[in-house]
Amino acid sequence: MPSPTPPPDAIDVGLLSPVTVGHDDAVTDDAVLAALVTAEVALARAYGSLGAAPADAVDEIETAFGWEGAARGCRAHGLSATALAGAAVAGGNPVIPLVGAMRERVSPGAAAWLHRGATSQDILDTALLIVARDAAVRVSASLRHAEVLLRSLARAWRDEPAAARTLTQHAVPTTIGLRAAGWLRGVRRAGARLDESRRSLPAQLGGAAGTGAALLAHLGSVEAVTGLRAAFATETGLAAASVPWHTERWPVTELGDALVQAIDAVGKIAADVATLSRTEIGELAEGAGGGSSAMPQKRNPASSVLIRSAALRAPQLGATLHLAAALAVDERPDGAWHAEWPTLRELIRLALGAAAHAARLVETLHVDTDAVTRNLAATRGLIVSERIAVVLTPLIGADRVREVVAAAGRGDDLGALIGSLPEAAGLDIDALLDPAAYTGLAGAFVDASRLLAEGGEDQEGAP
Amino acid sequence: MPSPTPPPDAIDVGLLSPVTVGHDDAVTDDAVLAALVTAEVALARAYGSLGAAPADAVDEIETAFGWEGAARGCRAHGLSATALAGAAVAGGNPVIPLVGAMRERVSPGAAAWLHRGATSQDILDTALLIVARDAAVRVSASLRHAEVLLRSLARAWRDEPAAARTLTQHAVPTTIGLRAAGWLRGVRRAGARLDESRRSLPAQLGGAAGTGAALLAHLGSVEAVTGLRAAFATETGLAAASVPWHTERWPVTELGDALVQAIDAVGKIAADVATLSRTEIGELAEGAGGGSSAMPQKRNPASSVLIRSAALRAPQLGATLHLAAALAVDERPDGAWHAEWPTLRELIRLALGAAAHAARLVETLHVDTDAVTRNLAATRGLIVSERIAVVLTPLIGADRVREVVAAAGRGDDLGALIGSLPEAAGLDIDALLDPAAYTGLAGAFVDASRLLAEGGEDQEGAP
Amino acid sequence: MPSPTPPPDAIDVGLLSPVTVGHDDAVTDDAVLAALVTAEVALARAYGSLGAAPADAVDEIETAFGWEGAARGCRAHGLSATALAGAAVAGGNPVIPLVGAMRERVSPGAAAWLHRGATSQDILDTALLIVARDAAVRVSASLRHAEVLLRSLARAWRDEPAAARTLTQHAVPTTIGLRAAGWLRGVRRAGARLDESRRSLPAQLGGAAGTGAALLAHLGSVEAVTGLRAAFATETGLAAASVPWHTERWPVTELGDALVQAIDAVGKIAADVATLSRTEIGELAEGAGGGSSAMPQKRNPASSVLIRSAALRAPQLGATLHLAAALAVDERPDGAWHAEWPTLRELIRLALGAAAHAARLVETLHVDTDAVTRNLAATRGLIVSERIAVVLTPLIGADRVREVVAAAGRGDDLGALIGSLPEAAGLDIDALLDPAAYTGLAGAFVDASRLLAEGGEDQEGAP
Amino acid sequence: MPSPTPPPDAIDVGLLSPVTVGHDDAVTDDAVLAALVTAEVALARAYGSLGAAPADAVDEIETAFGWEGAARGCRAHGLSATALAGAAVAGGNPVIPLVGAMRERVSPGAAAWLHRGATSQDILDTALLIVARDAAVRVSASLRHAEVLLRSLARAWRDEPAAARTLTQHAVPTTIGLRAAGWLRGVRRAGARLDESRRSLPAQLGGAAGTGAALLAHLGSVEAVTGLRAAFATETGLAAASVPWHTERWPVTELGDALVQAIDAVGKIAADVATLSRTEIGELAEGAGGGSSAMPQKRNPASSVLIRSAALRAPQLGATLHLAAALAVDERPDGAWHAEWPTLRELIRLALGAAAHAARLVETLHVDTDAVTRNLAATRGLIVSERIAVVLTPLIGADRVREVVAAAGRGDDLGALIGSLPEAAGLDIDALLDPAAYTGLAGAFVDASRLLAEGGEDQEGAP
Repeated sequence: MPSPTPPPDAIDVGLLSPVTVGHDDAVTDDAVLAALVTAEVALARAYGSLGAAPADAVDEIETAFGWEGAARGCRAHGLSATALAGAAVAGGNPVIPLVGAMRERVSPGAAAWLHRGATSQDILDTALLIVARDAAVRVSASLRHAEVLLRSLARAWRDEPAAARTLTQHAVPTTIGLRAAGWLRGVRRAGARLDESRRSLPAQLGGAAGTGAALLAHLGSVEAVTGLRAAFATETGLAAASVPWHTERWPVTELGDALVQAIDAVGKIAADVATLSRTEIGELAEGAGGGSSAMPQKRNPASSVLIRSAALRAPQLGATLHLAAALAVDERPDGAWHAEWPTLRELIRLALGAAAHAARLVETLHVDTDAVTRNLAATRGLIVSERIAVVLTPLIGADRVREVVAAAGRGDDLGALIGSLPEAAGLDIDALLDPAAYTGLAGAFVDASRLLAEGGEDQEGAP
Repeated sequence: MPSPTPPPDAIDVGLLSPVTVGHDDAVTDDAVLAALVTAEVALARAYGSLGAAPADAVDEIETAFGWEGAARGCRAHGLSATALAGAAVAGGNPVIPLVGAMRERVSPGAAAWLHRGATSQDILDTALLIVARDAAVRVSASLRHAEVLLRSLARAWRDEPAAARTLTQHAVPTTIGLRAAGWLRGVRRAGARLDESRRSLPAQLGGAAGTGAALLAHLGSVEAVTGLRAAFATETGLAAASVPWHTERWPVTELGDALVQAIDAVGKIAADVATLSRTEIGELAEGAGGGSSAMPQKRNPASSVLIRSAALRAPQLGATLHLAAALAVDERPDGAWHAEWPTLRELIRLALGAAAHAARLVETLHVDTDAVTRNLAATRGLIVSERIAVVLTPLIGADRVREVVAAAGRGDDLGALIGSLPEAAGLDIDALLDPAAYTGLAGAFVDASRLLAEGGEDQEGAP
Repeated sequence: MPSPTPPPDAIDVGLLSPVTVGHDDAVTDDAVLAALVTAEVALARAYGSLGAAPADAVDEIETAFGWEGAARGCRAHGLSATALAGAAVAGGNPVIPLVGAMRERVSPGAAAWLHRGATSQDILDTALLIVARDAAVRVSASLRHAEVLLRSLARAWRDEPAAARTLTQHAVPTTIGLRAAGWLRGVRRAGARLDESRRSLPAQLGGAAGTGAALLAHLGSVEAVTGLRAAFATETGLAAASVPWHTERWPVTELGDALVQAIDAVGKIAADVATLSRTEIGELAEGAGGGSSAMPQKRNPASSVLIRSAALRAPQLGATLHLAAALAVDERPDGAWHAEWPTLRELIRLALGAAAHAARLVETLHVDTDAVTRNLAATRGLIVSERIAVVLTPLIGADRVREVVAAAGRGDDLGALIGSLPEAAGLDIDALLDPAAYTGLAGAFVDASRLLAEGGEDQEGAP
Repeated sequence: MPSPTPPPDAIDVGLLSPVTVGHDDAVTDDAVLAALVTAEVALARAYGSLGAAPADAVDEIETAFGWEGAARGCRAHGLSATALAGAAVAGGNPVIPLVGAMRERVSPGAAAWLHRGATSQDILDTALLIVARDAAVRVSASLRHAEVLLRSLARAWRDEPAAARTLTQHAVPTTIGLRAAGWLRGVRRAGARLDESRRSLPAQLGGAAGTGAALLAHLGSVEAVTGLRAAFATETGLAAASVPWHTERWPVTELGDALVQAIDAVGKIAADVATLSRTEIGELAEGAGGGSSAMPQKRNPASSVLIRSAALRAPQLGATLHLAAALAVDERPDGAWHAEWPTLRELIRLALGAAAHAARLVETLHVDTDAVTRNLAATRGLIVSERIAVVLTPLIGADRVREVVAAAGRGDDLGALIGSLPEAAGLDIDALLDPAAYTGLAGAFVDASRLLAEGGEDQEGAP
């Protein structure tokens, strides 16, 4: 174990969050600080791009705080997230002390163009969405990686029959490929939703109460303010909102919903893998980690467990974002806005970790075909009892079919029972009882799912 | 009060839910029962449309259960939601006894085509989405009604200055029109999301474990099953899913998210109206209801209160839907699916009530311009202190500006203080202090919001 | 299926809530209406008991509305929950129209003593807690029933070894009795919490803003009002609060927390039963229901599934109650209070259903000892690998122990491997590998758990 | 701003959490690490106290890792939370690498007594509850501080009349003291619940699956294991549980419920202060912070805003703990346990911050009696309309009373209207209209609330 001790002011370095460790550098407080600085610099650049701010003032600001390298700029200037956090309490947000600190670090001429006409919320909302956007790109990459792997998995096991389970019990056969195809569709849909949400995340610039009054006072014309707002969005790489959205918080809740949906999608995979990895089931095993030297019989589905820990937490975080949106009273609410910040960050963090683990889980997933086959046979043929009913009912009637399968349920040999039926004389009993011959459209559904995932025509959701 | 007493088996007739009373007939258990019957009849019709089921069997089923009138069909046949609810416990869902009851009510030849190849989940998922779709149409209508009214409201009060409040305190001026425009954008976005979600709600048809095996056994070819699935979607008016989605629950969570977003949007309106209706503020008043004969000074914002009661509940209902999605293990999960049903219904119900109240609230909203003007003056000019800083700082420097506004903050006359500054000699002080002259782009933002709402180009969210 | 159709105004007769069907008559809207009437009659009786109200007025009220039979009184007078629900919208709560309706049904002299000095919240809070108290008695009875059964179960299977599972994998042996003992402790603790909460549920009586001003105006002395408040509590059977608690909502959240805890406790049982009932595991089976005639191999853990559906919903309902408490602004809040009513009712309802199902589940639970034994042997002895390490490490060192168990993990015979170790010559290998001999303090822990549950000294939680 | 930059591995130093900054050092990852080490050392000491472990081994462990100074021990040994966090991913929890690292740092003889017979969950559960206990002591201290201040506040303003508001509207008079008394009761009750929960937090020691099998293998007798478990509890200062509670999670949920209740209680205060600080109301002001140099008219209720941000988040965190409890399947669940850790920490952290802010808020709270008086008069006497009805109805009948107050509601002078009534000739109209004379039992309720808080007989909740 290496030696650097964290400072006493680090509340969270991941010790209690194994699902996100190694995946969360995009959402650290340092990353947020860099984004706050980026937003301030972007505003100065936007003024510069209009010709409103002198080029040398903008240059000085960029040079000082490091456009394209705001994190380095912070370090160079000793702008520390810890110090800002402490200074944020009095005013309730970190932008107030940040602006003061930034202004101290440049000439008065440049300082005048820092935060000009803006309000704390403009900078904080913009910075959080910069962080969210950058992190969402990574979540999307993990989801896409998982998608590619799931497409292969679905193809590879397209026709491998396996027991389908409803309400914990063997029902009828399915295929491993169809199960993977379900995961694929869930991940794909969630990825598409997240991409859509990510691309529409809007910059925020409206001034003290969202009227842009100070911006107008500085710039003199509505057109110039409109230009500044567009330039600011361009500089931040965020979408341009036609109107400030200070207390209309759907950009945050839509992002939150998409993140929760992404975690749901990988949570479903993890639920299945954890279940199918059970000692008695053993159809699947995570290929990496999870071993126990003291108990070598254990093959803990470690990634599944971690993903599930995220999936159990995410929905309630999403709910908090919605509550904050519904309670966004006035032109800046008395608590609801502040409740969003750590909640959104934690939700992004969970999505980063859960999606990364999901990709790795799928990549290393091991299918134990012996176990699959053994399990399929566990009900001694009754897994196709539905098929038997379809085939035999026209021959012997529903009542006698029920008698046959009930007898088999009590332990009699199903094939022999059917073989003893005169009416069933012509049937190929082995074929009738073969689970592989009763997987319905599983293959076709795999193909359809893979087609969707390859960008083929998506009928899902089309009216 | 009229006399019909509800039966002892009605748990909920709305006594504890004033926000939804009068708006929830689309989501009663009777409506759900009718939709269950509709789904079963639709399946028979779908078989009929393929030529698989004999026309007279389908006719018999339609005649018995009333296509386009399933509710009447239920009543005619004594299919009661209460009885089904009781019979649903053993198997855990109401479709099992429903199918039995329906089969008893037709000839054996027709009975064979009821529920053929389907599983309970096919019928229940489809029925809940039929109910959801029909209800969502009404929610959308209420939102659209509110939107039209808000567009007018925003236009009517486009230039009426009013105090903007941040963190409960007067900040700078805004306009009543801009506040309404914010509401408009929120409602419009939520309505668009809901419409999108509503139109993509997919029918469910996959059989016992989503493989369509029994359907294939009955129909003989993949193509025929594909045709049946498409016909079933057509009959139900739902979207066709290329693959069953038994345990990929995003259709439910996306709908849930959209419903919560709709409630958030009207919740924000209600939060503002409730606040601005406070006795001391009095800028807004609901025009209907809320009076108290004993305390005539009260003008309770009754609709706002009710809408807020929904907005505080909805996010946690949405969270439950996400949890159910993340825990949808196997081919039918052991509890998560069942948790969805009442949760989704309650969420739709809240959306119905909250949206209807919101439309009524906006329709009857009264603006008291005397109160608006009085409040604007409450800080004796300091509401434009930001503007004073912008204007005076170049003339007297930031330190002296702070002194001036601080003195005004302690009670000195702001106009006189500025008037006594030699550097400010040329200023039109009355104009400088006029809140109406410091509303920034409020008017332009109103116009942009109204343009969006009229279907003009929507830059919001465009990359 | 019997024929009475529910009226179109019944939103919920249980069709979507199989977990609560048959257990929810204590929380119907009719039960709430009866409790509202009971609260009003109790207030009149309290006035009567002080000698403030004339005996004949109180008699008239009691006779009219049926003390000890408020439900009958409602029916006799045509007081219908449906009608009240409709009339409640304008004012936002059903007490306003109820008082009007009750006053119309008695003489003016009696009417004057109805609702005298009270506010709607007094009656509604009191009524909801009457309903809650009565329902909680039933929940407690179910929990106590389950407790008795679990005590027997734990004793019966005190020494039956079974595989313990951690992170889905066989770890070491435990006993079926210890598992039951864990359930027992959870249920017992939850029952105790619920009883404590239930017994402290306080009546509400404070007048328009909780000052009792109108009560004082009517009665003339602080002592008389204090007496009235005490008498009111006595009449309702609720606890007496020394001060009204209109916007201090811990009576509601503490009850909510206890209900959620009760559902958690039975949820844990259901999670275990559902898992251990899996086709491949088969150690447990619910004895009642859950069968499928079409798929006789299925033994659906139907009660477990239903209980789990409640357990996934309850925590978010509890969260809503807490939110309402935190947002209980002013002397009556603008939405938070209204959000409580249906939420609390639904939470009680879930507890009623989940606890009843749990008692039945435990009562009929079947243990398949063959499956238990088979599963214990599934890792071919490695389930005691921890023990092997404890015993062998002193003999051959940790490294060689790891080699032995690793070899066994790859398939070698564990007994033979150990038998071939010279250092292990004196060991009784069969005894070493016997899972029944490595259950630690399981028996003692069962005894301790049963002792607790029998009211013995409870060290749990003692400092 | 000072210069130390946090390491890139610190996800959270408080930048997005102003409500907790400065109050969270008890719950940092370093504090958790120290508690993990403390738990391990406590186990060695417990073995030592039984005479099972040699004294020198225990001494070596204590000396190495610093009993009573585990944090220093970690630093001395380079045990870093960051490194452990990274090493925790593979196995899913930080105890596994911690034990390895600790064993490397002592002699083999001592290493044998580290973690002996324990499982990761024993150490992690115990450590989290050590952290929780220590933090809860601080939360309690803040609550008690607030309680003392609120008692004074309630006494100081016992008889100061103020407008009571229901549904945002002036209803009848109350007193500032009674409002403070309500806050006092809420805080007091929450503090009592938290103390009760805190004192019962149990140590965890059960081994791999809660049977204590390895402990028994090491110690040889049930009595010795029982002694060890008791000694371990004593060493950690936690309560002794008679049985391990690995998957019976009520110790966590009860703590969580108490923390949420504490946050609710201060959230209610914050809601009232934020509302009563509104520019138009101005009855209260926070005495510290919240100023804006640019907008001196603003007196932001900064602490209230921050407390509210916590109150909006806490309930959903509590819900996650309950979900984890309900889903605690098997002898260690597949995700639910892991979901608890960060959730519980964040909830404690919010309680620390919210309670500290609440104490400070109350300490510095300013009452503006001018504003209180002005607001009381805002409805020109109608605030006592309820009283007028009580007094005048016997004289002129309810209908004419309604006419009088309605006329006043339209603007007529209420005193003059009453003065013109012949039937009211004898009334002292000024006294009748005096809000101070219509505060009911407010004073008595203040006294009762203060008595409770002073430890007097608590009738609340007594049956």
